[in-house]
Amino acid sequence: MAVTLKDVARRAGVSPSAVSRTFTPGASVSEKTRKKVEGAARDLGYSPSFIARSLTTKRTKLIGLVANNFQNPVFLEVFDLYTRALQQRELRPLLVNLTNETDPEQSLRMLRQYGVDAVIVATSTLPPNFSRAFRAARVPVVHAFGRFDPVANVHVVGIDNNLCGRMAAETLTSRGYRNIAIIGGPEYATSTQDRIAGFCQRMRELKLPVEDISYAANYTYAAGRSAMIELMRRTSVEAVFCGDDLICMGAMDAARSRGKSIPRDIGFLGFNDMDISSWDAYQLTTIRQPIRDIILSSVELVVELADDTERKPEIRLFPCTIIERSSLRPVSAG
Amino acid sequence: MAVTLKDVARRAGVSPSAVSRTFTPGASVSEKTRKKVEGAARDLGYSPSFIARSLTTKRTKLIGLVANNFQNPVFLEVFDLYTRALQQRELRPLLVNLTNETDPEQSLRMLRQYGVDAVIVATSTLPPNFSRAFRAARVPVVHAFGRFDPVANVHVVGIDNNLCGRMAAETLTSRGYRNIAIIGGPEYATSTQDRIAGFCQRMRELKLPVEDISYAANYTYAAGRSAMIELMRRTSVEAVFCGDDLICMGAMDAARSRGKSIPRDIGFLGFNDMDISSWDAYQLTTIRQPIRDIILSSVELVVELADDTERKPEIRLFPCTIIERSSLRPVSAG
Repeated sequence: MAVTLKDVARRAGVSPSAVSRTFTPGASVSEKTRKKVEGAARDLGYSPSFIARSLTTKRTKLIGLVANNFQNPVFLEVFDLYTRALQQRELRPLLVNLTNETDPEQSLRMLRQYGVDAVIVATSTLPPNFSRAFRAARVPVVHAFGRFDPVANVHVVGIDNNLCGRMAAETLTSRGYRNIAIIGGPEYATSTQDRIAGFCQRMRELKLPVEDISYAANYTYAAGRSAMIELMRRTSVEAVFCGDDLICMGAMDAARSRGKSIPRDIGFLGFNDMDISSWDAYQLTTIRQPIRDIILSSVELVVELADDTERKPEIRLFPCTIIERSSLRPVSAG
Repeated sequence: MAVTLKDVARRAGVSPSAVSRTFTPGASVSEKTRKKVEGAARDLGYSPSFIARSLTTKRTKLIGLVANNFQNPVFLEVFDLYTRALQQRELRPLLVNLTNETDPEQSLRMLRQYGVDAVIVATSTLPPNFSRAFRAARVPVVHAFGRFDPVANVHVVGIDNNLCGRMAAETLTSRGYRNIAIIGGPEYATSTQDRIAGFCQRMRELKLPVEDISYAANYTYAAGRSAMIELMRRTSVEAVFCGDDLICMGAMDAARSRGKSIPRDIGFLGFNDMDISSWDAYQLTTIRQPIRDIILSSVELVVELADDTERKPEIRLFPCTIIERSSLRPVSAG
């Protein structure tokens, strides 16, 4: 009983080809015809089927959006921005949740079954063989928030995590902190590895030691809290650079539960600048990732790749900035 | 250059029909044949196209997941649970972001273009004409976290918000609070209206007045903080029932910024029990929505509806529970 293109043509009193042109982006059709066709389509409840059309155009307008972090509120903003940016281009996100998923082939098979036009992998913690498997299957893929991997050779949009680690070392030492610890994100995340490497590099250049390096088990408040309690058992520090704001807020509360005052007794520097970081209870000084820039740029890139699949993998990096609140002592106190 | 079913049959040394049966859920095929076919498919990188298949079966296995709240961390858990529950059933979520969207026809057109098998609308703040428009278009729809609307006549899975409002009044009065205010969620949300109605009803039964009723502009910390500052300008209260935990945490910080101690000077009762509510800085006593039950049940229902489109709309309600922390004085103090 489905309404067909011909039904619409009949009702509008135009040719089927005019109906087809009305629903083809960029095709030429007079304003008068378009109005008639749209009116008839509305009356009959007709909408052109992307699925039927995709078999001839080989375009489904579906974009796989692959993520594996559903605990960190930052990803809610990520989903919001991606879905809106894709919808504005008449593309649709097919959301793939890789939590607990370790087999790239399984995810790949699923996305290919739907004939997605391209894939955006939005995570820094995915093993590199994931993006590599997509690439090998000739599905255009952009890895957002990722690290460039010469073997995977996949397009990357994100930040320079090494440089951000250096920025963290600079921020803390310029305020006079000397006895500094790092509580990184999960150790397997390339973002963690790169930030810590950059941090340690800058400290070596300044001829300063890094007092302690540990890792939170995941991007949660609870993991940050436990890591800080362990840290306080091992040693006493003046400042902590945390791999993420959630981890940092857990660490701050652990310090306060031991009677420490922030920033008087101990300073904290976060990463991400999520909404909670500005709340009265935390007022966290943190390094802001330009999430909106990364997302808009990766959507733009994925659209271009659909028309240019042979394009050589490129890396687009956006700068981070320090958001000054009150979890560190001021620069002048250094 | 795409690998076809025939290529796989040739390589596996079986008939094309055996390949087809291997990839049809429930079809009969020997273990030996299945192994051969799966091996050949893997070698050739073949996966059956759902898109091509959907034209014959009329099933796309796509489920529209419609949401409009990308600020509240509760929705990250909602997306996580939905995507996992759908994936387990080999269904795929097509995520639709209705933030700033006011035209149901537009969303409906988009979902019909992809031939979604069904739609889950996961929000309490959507105008009822949205679900109604889907229903009118004969797309099976389940409204999760919604209110039953006799006109829309759509399947609903959620909680009894009126009963939860009564539970809030009971919780506060049984602790001896008398001078009580409500800071609700947005006034247009049916969940807000129902919770406040239930709360006021129970207070009337107890012959107690409700000191003040106001509304947060949205489900954010900032909106809760402003609403509490306004409230403190108007009047002085012993306890506040908030429409959501985020709103409640903003209100708590507003009270503390005016030198109030919680729960000594003023008590707070939240709603949702999100992860942040258990953090040291808040330790919020709150009413927990059984999010997991609601999601699993709505996925189950949506699967059934795809086979039983004529089914009469039903309402599935799950009970809420009080999560006791330390933002209210204990019962014995009443």
